[in-house]
Amino acid sequence: MITGKNYIGNQLLATGNKTYKTFNPKLNIENEHTFFEASEEEIEKAVSLATEAFEVFKKVSGAKKGEFLNAIADEILNLDEILIEAYMSETGLPEGRAKGERGRTVGQLRTFADLVTEGSWVEATIDTSDLDRNPIPKQDIRKMLVPLGPVVVFGASNFPLAYSTAGGDTAAAFAAGCPVIVKSHPMHATTGELVASAISKAAQKTGMPEGVFSNLNSAGIEVGVQLVKHPKVKAVGFTGSIKGGRALFDLASQRPEPIPVFAEMGSVNPVVILPKATTLRGTEIAKTYAQSITLGAGQFCTNPGLILGIKGESLDDFIKVLSDEIVKIEPSCMLHPNIIGNYDKNKTNALQQNGLAVTAEFNNDIATNHARQTLTTVDGKTFLENKTLHEEVFGPFSMVVQCQDAKELETIINNLEGQLTGTIIAENEEIVKYNTVIEALQNRVGRIIFNGVPTGVEVCPAMLHGGPYPASTDSRFTAVGIHAIKRWVRPFSYQSWPNDLLPDELKNENPLGISRVIDSQHTYRKI
Amino acid sequence: MITGKNYIGNQLLATGNKTYKTFNPKLNIENEHTFFEASEEEIEKAVSLATEAFEVFKKVSGAKKGEFLNAIADEILNLDEILIEAYMSETGLPEGRAKGERGRTVGQLRTFADLVTEGSWVEATIDTSDLDRNPIPKQDIRKMLVPLGPVVVFGASNFPLAYSTAGGDTAAAFAAGCPVIVKSHPMHATTGELVASAISKAAQKTGMPEGVFSNLNSAGIEVGVQLVKHPKVKAVGFTGSIKGGRALFDLASQRPEPIPVFAEMGSVNPVVILPKATTLRGTEIAKTYAQSITLGAGQFCTNPGLILGIKGESLDDFIKVLSDEIVKIEPSCMLHPNIIGNYDKNKTNALQQNGLAVTAEFNNDIATNHARQTLTTVDGKTFLENKTLHEEVFGPFSMVVQCQDAKELETIINNLEGQLTGTIIAENEEIVKYNTVIEALQNRVGRIIFNGVPTGVEVCPAMLHGGPYPASTDSRFTAVGIHAIKRWVRPFSYQSWPNDLLPDELKNENPLGISRVIDSQHTYRKI
Repeated sequence: MITGKNYIGNQLLATGNKTYKTFNPKLNIENEHTFFEASEEEIEKAVSLATEAFEVFKKVSGAKKGEFLNAIADEILNLDEILIEAYMSETGLPEGRAKGERGRTVGQLRTFADLVTEGSWVEATIDTSDLDRNPIPKQDIRKMLVPLGPVVVFGASNFPLAYSTAGGDTAAAFAAGCPVIVKSHPMHATTGELVASAISKAAQKTGMPEGVFSNLNSAGIEVGVQLVKHPKVKAVGFTGSIKGGRALFDLASQRPEPIPVFAEMGSVNPVVILPKATTLRGTEIAKTYAQSITLGAGQFCTNPGLILGIKGESLDDFIKVLSDEIVKIEPSCMLHPNIIGNYDKNKTNALQQNGLAVTAEFNNDIATNHARQTLTTVDGKTFLENKTLHEEVFGPFSMVVQCQDAKELETIINNLEGQLTGTIIAENEEIVKYNTVIEALQNRVGRIIFNGVPTGVEVCPAMLHGGPYPASTDSRFTAVGIHAIKRWVRPFSYQSWPNDLLPDELKNENPLGISRVIDSQHTYRKI
Repeated sequence: MITGKNYIGNQLLATGNKTYKTFNPKLNIENEHTFFEASEEEIEKAVSLATEAFEVFKKVSGAKKGEFLNAIADEILNLDEILIEAYMSETGLPEGRAKGERGRTVGQLRTFADLVTEGSWVEATIDTSDLDRNPIPKQDIRKMLVPLGPVVVFGASNFPLAYSTAGGDTAAAFAAGCPVIVKSHPMHATTGELVASAISKAAQKTGMPEGVFSNLNSAGIEVGVQLVKHPKVKAVGFTGSIKGGRALFDLASQRPEPIPVFAEMGSVNPVVILPKATTLRGTEIAKTYAQSITLGAGQFCTNPGLILGIKGESLDDFIKVLSDEIVKIEPSCMLHPNIIGNYDKNKTNALQQNGLAVTAEFNNDIATNHARQTLTTVDGKTFLENKTLHEEVFGPFSMVVQCQDAKELETIINNLEGQLTGTIIAENEEIVKYNTVIEALQNRVGRIIFNGVPTGVEVCPAMLHGGPYPASTDSRFTAVGIHAIKRWVRPFSYQSWPNDLLPDELKNENPLGISRVIDSQHTYRKI
């Protein structure tokens, strides 16, 4: 069933000669299938098909796009155990996680299906004419969101389903009306090909134009570079490292026609634990955080890698409990030898910095490719002065910064880079007292959490997954939730356009019955 | 009353030693006042004040921001004749235009005042909790739009009021809650200082924090460069040339922390005239376009610089009438000797291209700094092959491209760069016949007009003023209309946040009575 080939539209091609295999980190062996890296000619063909498909796909109704998205979800479920096994063999993650992530992926697809079937997401805005106005007659102007064109999506290493081939970026782009070319993540090419087959089937079953989707294999950077530089590609979605995301952003910004890159990148997700909460609930908080730090071997973009507290007995107690708890947890397998290699390298680099102390590290024997969770501490001054300590160590690693006082805590927050999330652990009364600390944290993050954990990113309309750079390349957009669709669209205005030639969304008779703003009034009415 | 100094917050400073004067193009003499270019230290102070002001201003209520915006409008009107005279002396534009543009500027400020006073623009989105959900409890998440931080606005040469100091960018940024530092346009520094004084007065009268606004004089590029590279500046608005806008975009993209640049740049605003309409209404269309091409000496970003038709007798007749009509119009003074210098240079450059013929040029005596309107023709093949002919000639210049057939017309459109507007002059029945031509045009533009002219950009919710690059650097945003506010904001999520500490927009009791989306339902209700 697995061919190792590239989906160029509905065709499976392997005209190139570079090949690679994926790796089973749990068994520490290569997986069986050989994948053919997409050739220049295949890339060209995928983009060309996507460009042609765009002219058709952009006019496909919301209801039909909804059918397509639901069909993808159905076909993914039809892959059943084959998909779950491939996922597990390429990630070392357990079955529960595989099924959970599949559920999330299918759920996202259906959420976007509902959104476009209902149709009001296009923000239809109508200003009717007043041709008797003096001195200049007012023309009829109508605006709605329209798709940008072919989009390239880079699969994420840590979410082979939910943020890869048919993940959030792809679902949002299809919903918007953009053809998608996926640059498959090399660590899970089998999973990628299976999901690609599901999308291809769904596209054919629901009558989508060929080229609405392609899936390109690649273990190097060339395929991605060629795609991002291609003049017919109009936007890019990426989830991964700051280095990778920034490189794509730079490429895209330097094109003759710059294009938007939405890259969701690194984050240490600072957690501020305030003194009274630490005193009253330190043990409970420590237990919760031991779980959050090690969840999925810490391979989440919202993993709490930095805990900021104020020096004192209660913080010492918290650190002690957290240290005790964290080593009790059974280590997990990481996604790939390269990932654990980076984890060890980045951890070693951090530990070589003056003033960073290890307070807990899992020291018993562990299986190959499993990560030793590690808790470290450092004082505020040292942390503030050494930017190396601000860098993410992707994996089950966290650092407790012991600040001198609230002022130093605030200074540290003001010196952090942009983050996906910030968390405040506090008693209610502390919020007023530490008001400026909390304000500072809000400036640095995309989502702020009260007395919770940053892991667990709910797919809901109010979710903001993104944040000031380098959490993402454009803080004005989210990567999770229905508003992720806004990354792939632009507003478009029709002036004095004949009613029967307008898109349904803007016609007088409102045939889709969508919510619109007419002469500044929200309404579902006809004109 | 005019000091020539920089407004650094409410202080007038002139610590630098570079000076310059503005120019009266109508009288062809320098104006009287000397302006002091902002020094590095003044720039630093303006940014530092803006950064401090942001912490206060971002929490100012919509109603108070509305008062501020309305007060700016009032203070601008209070400047009365002094402002109109300064405007005329620095632009060569007539009184009617000065007053019209003042009206537009005041109108924009009041529109944004209404928008933020009402308050629903923040797109408050609430997903309530379901703590009994299995396997993972659902947390309460609430999202709204929040301001980005200090914004730098570059004034436009061609709209000293409506797209400069207190123009659309500034009004939208204040409405969003962002302090604004204006890099004053050197051609109208007097007008700029007067408007700056109005903003400063309004800020003090309505209790806004110092630093919410600064106005920096500059005749070179250094001030702008320093501002855009400043780490505490969070976004940039610009209206002007492709060269200038792209340079700022590149600077901003190459920063360690890239920031969004919204630049509204060049456009030739293609007008497609279809055969039947040309036959039936050629004379009337030609008369209308003679006016549109020469309006305000062609110094509008939506000036129709390119007319695309299909070869034939009716197009010949159209060209003849347009030629006759265009030379009947009295030439106007351009904004500045540099602008007319560029007009002459770019026109000469175009006319040196093989195959471009002049069919009409105003050849009688004209006053100094007045522009000779010029109409040219070229055949489709020549136009297609020579990209120099695609470039904007800013001024009362237009080019009629005589295409061989509909196919060549479509190819030409597909090879145009991104444009602010595209116009179709057609009989209704031609829309179906030339369907693919119209589709092609839609892909290249931000606003499409049926049987009208592109000049005249209505300030209304449905307006999209922007478009694919290089019409603007980010086609996902508009420069005109209430949605221009979205350039200066980012979504922000609160998770499990205590109700009384949430911003009013997100509180259960909906104290502002705004429209919100609660659990996916549009509503004005309390929770």
